[in-house]
Amino acid sequence: MVQIAKAIDEAEELGPDYADLDATVAVDLVAANHILAHNGVLDSFGHVSIRDPRDARRYLQMQAIAPRDVTTADLITFDLDSNAINARGRPIYRERFIHGQIYKMRPDVSAVVHSHSPTVIPFSVTEKPLRAIFHNGHFLGQGTPVWEIRDDAGEQNNMLVLSNELGRSLAEKLGNGSVVLMRGHGNAVAGPDLKTTVFRAIYTEVNAKLQMQAVMLGGPINFLNEYEEKKSQNVDRPWHTWKKQVGAV
Amino acid sequence: MVQIAKAIDEAEELGPDYADLDATVAVDLVAANHILAHNGVLDSFGHVSIRDPRDARRYLQMQAIAPRDVTTADLITFDLDSNAINARGRPIYRERFIHGQIYKMRPDVSAVVHSHSPTVIPFSVTEKPLRAIFHNGHFLGQGTPVWEIRDDAGEQNNMLVLSNELGRSLAEKLGNGSVVLMRGHGNAVAGPDLKTTVFRAIYTEVNAKLQMQAVMLGGPINFLNEYEEKKSQNVDRPWHTWKKQVGAV
Amino acid sequence: MVQIAKAIDEAEELGPDYADLDATVAVDLVAANHILAHNGVLDSFGHVSIRDPRDARRYLQMQAIAPRDVTTADLITFDLDSNAINARGRPIYRERFIHGQIYKMRPDVSAVVHSHSPTVIPFSVTEKPLRAIFHNGHFLGQGTPVWEIRDDAGEQNNMLVLSNELGRSLAEKLGNGSVVLMRGHGNAVAGPDLKTTVFRAIYTEVNAKLQMQAVMLGGPINFLNEYEEKKSQNVDRPWHTWKKQVGAV
Amino acid sequence: MVQIAKAIDEAEELGPDYADLDATVAVDLVAANHILAHNGVLDSFGHVSIRDPRDARRYLQMQAIAPRDVTTADLITFDLDSNAINARGRPIYRERFIHGQIYKMRPDVSAVVHSHSPTVIPFSVTEKPLRAIFHNGHFLGQGTPVWEIRDDAGEQNNMLVLSNELGRSLAEKLGNGSVVLMRGHGNAVAGPDLKTTVFRAIYTEVNAKLQMQAVMLGGPINFLNEYEEKKSQNVDRPWHTWKKQVGAV
Repeated sequence: MVQIAKAIDEAEELGPDYADLDATVAVDLVAANHILAHNGVLDSFGHVSIRDPRDARRYLQMQAIAPRDVTTADLITFDLDSNAINARGRPIYRERFIHGQIYKMRPDVSAVVHSHSPTVIPFSVTEKPLRAIFHNGHFLGQGTPVWEIRDDAGEQNNMLVLSNELGRSLAEKLGNGSVVLMRGHGNAVAGPDLKTTVFRAIYTEVNAKLQMQAVMLGGPINFLNEYEEKKSQNVDRPWHTWKKQVGAV
Repeated sequence: MVQIAKAIDEAEELGPDYADLDATVAVDLVAANHILAHNGVLDSFGHVSIRDPRDARRYLQMQAIAPRDVTTADLITFDLDSNAINARGRPIYRERFIHGQIYKMRPDVSAVVHSHSPTVIPFSVTEKPLRAIFHNGHFLGQGTPVWEIRDDAGEQNNMLVLSNELGRSLAEKLGNGSVVLMRGHGNAVAGPDLKTTVFRAIYTEVNAKLQMQAVMLGGPINFLNEYEEKKSQNVDRPWHTWKKQVGAV
Repeated sequence: MVQIAKAIDEAEELGPDYADLDATVAVDLVAANHILAHNGVLDSFGHVSIRDPRDARRYLQMQAIAPRDVTTADLITFDLDSNAINARGRPIYRERFIHGQIYKMRPDVSAVVHSHSPTVIPFSVTEKPLRAIFHNGHFLGQGTPVWEIRDDAGEQNNMLVLSNELGRSLAEKLGNGSVVLMRGHGNAVAGPDLKTTVFRAIYTEVNAKLQMQAVMLGGPINFLNEYEEKKSQNVDRPWHTWKKQVGAV
Repeated sequence: MVQIAKAIDEAEELGPDYADLDATVAVDLVAANHILAHNGVLDSFGHVSIRDPRDARRYLQMQAIAPRDVTTADLITFDLDSNAINARGRPIYRERFIHGQIYKMRPDVSAVVHSHSPTVIPFSVTEKPLRAIFHNGHFLGQGTPVWEIRDDAGEQNNMLVLSNELGRSLAEKLGNGSVVLMRGHGNAVAGPDLKTTVFRAIYTEVNAKLQMQAVMLGGPINFLNEYEEKKSQNVDRPWHTWKKQVGAV
């Protein structure tokens, strides 16, 4: 909570790098980090980014600390090859290539979340696809793809997306979708703006819990059909109340 | 917590529309919203209503914000076709037709909850009926009906109850019962008064958790019989302590 | 938390009925109520009692309010037929006969808990017995009995233990054990003193969770044997830290 | 929280026994206890130790109270046969032999946790081995061994590691690994330093939850391979944010 209050104060003094950035953009990115931690999607790991509203060939992400601890002072700018423009010695997330490559391949995407969202992981190591089981999980469609790092890095890999090559492969697996699972690791979520992307990250976890329970009850499961998965979604209401929960309103 | 305290203060100044409404009625409706959010039945979505104690052809519901954030200042009156009488530009819940149509068809009902109560949803997309498995879930009886929106709106539907026609169909599926499940979406709960309805909404979720665990243990399951499901229920004690939990006593 | 602080102050002025009662006994009974609520064993319902240390033919229990709300001012004395000695118009728990009949049949028992402990209920409506699966659940032994109210009250029963006859039947099913399950309702836990009984009530729930997970993993399950179930148990350490958690130390 | 603040103050006055000990070592050991309690790995039971940085033939552990309640004033030194050097009448953990014997057999180990981490226990009484299912559980490798006390103490055992003989048997079962399960009881975790060991204790629980869910979804499960399980691990970030959570930074 205190971090957000501090963030709002600091927004007025974001420094020369961000003098031309709307301060609410920085505060919202801090809020997104805290909201995802508060809702159990991010633990000590994982990261959120937004495409830089001042330059579509760049993105903004925090320095590499735990999401629940970030403030606006942690803001760093990256190009789409994930080179840091103004890190100035601060640590950067090693798997930032996930973000850069998705922005490069998907002009429609303006925010990305990478998480180890817990109930999603079991779907990445078994064979039933994660699918839209209720209306708020509609964006998952008829099944989310699973990216297998062994296909690119071989059996002797270290499980992490540490290069633009691996990031590009992951972005290709995502395709035009909203969510891609990463086998034995986590997932990446993309959306047209920050609040929609946070909504999807949180409801991917909720949908996974519901689908697991439906499996437990015994099938067959009546999933959303191809029309239902296209329903419109109000994300303003949850975004507002989540911001209140972390003290950002 | 602070919202409730604020609610009680504001109750004294509910304004001209509610000058003839017992202030405790407004405070209880706020409390019901907060209690259902606190107990995980409502998240950012879902809504609670009461039949207007001043006019049985009307009902009262909050403006369309997250249940945990409502105060008595959010009160709006609707007729049973779910036209807002005094919205004055405030947003109203799009699925309010659920409420209006249940009140229209069920004179014995004075409160309705629509929620996405999480453990209940898996029962709406699989084939085992949700049934009374323990004494506090007695009102579920020998099985709750599941409403399938495709039966009315076809395959190309948007999952939501956005008209009086769909609301009436849902109310018909509810019949004389307490709870109706909505496939891939949530449920609607009805009762003779607000505290009983809140009790049922919370214990529908508890019963669903218990039934899911019983399935996991392996059947057969010894459900309540047709006499046991008619047991009387003390709802005053939980209502009082839930109000204390959200700061409304 | 505040209730306990209040309880300690009030202990000095328990009034003429309890002038000869060690004040720490009253405070511990309040703490037991709060601890069981804090640990999810009791919700708005359920009750705890102790045999009266001044007279083994009596027991002490709070007036009928939610366990998390009780203070020492709520103390009432009952005889073993569960007649209230000093209720003075205050409500009393309708199922108090569970307590009186267990004290009558088991001179070794000095505390009883009746709860709807959630994970225990599924074991009461399915066929696998709840058994000691880990050392801290040793007191469950080779399987806990399940009491079926239909055997005494017939199919047309109301699920509740509202008479000495039903209480005696339940106590007989408990036998010399620590825990008896009540079909579709909850359980009763007995022990030689309050802190041991609270320990058993909490670890019955923990053991039930572990056993359910073991079933999910797929059997066979290696339960504690008849020697292991007799291990000694340190209950002082958890009792002390639980009291700290609810502000009673 | 307050305990940690108190711990830091007291660190300056650890007394003559610890005048030559870096005060941050004592504070970190207190923090580890609180972190493991906060994350649900330790309840009222279980213990953490570190090899004494001043003398590799000794280890440091708190007096026998609940982990969430410890302060630096509770520090006690033990030799590797688990004789207390300076208990001065304070109670010591009865199962401390787990720690002494692991330090004796494993010069590479500088910290040990013994817990009843809940989701791990079901794996100790069933037949599927606990294995690395995601990258943060890599240290579990291709399967954790299960120690059966009956093999050493016979059927008539009391489930506890109350001697150096039993401790040595457990340490042998651990072998060169990170984690050993104890049938119907809990587990022991070893690591090269305190923060890595705390990380492993917490992520053993997380991995167990994920593996249980994967079993529920239905196999086959795609576990980490022998290369992936050797990935490097950043433990500084979680250690720092966990310390913040318990007020130790």
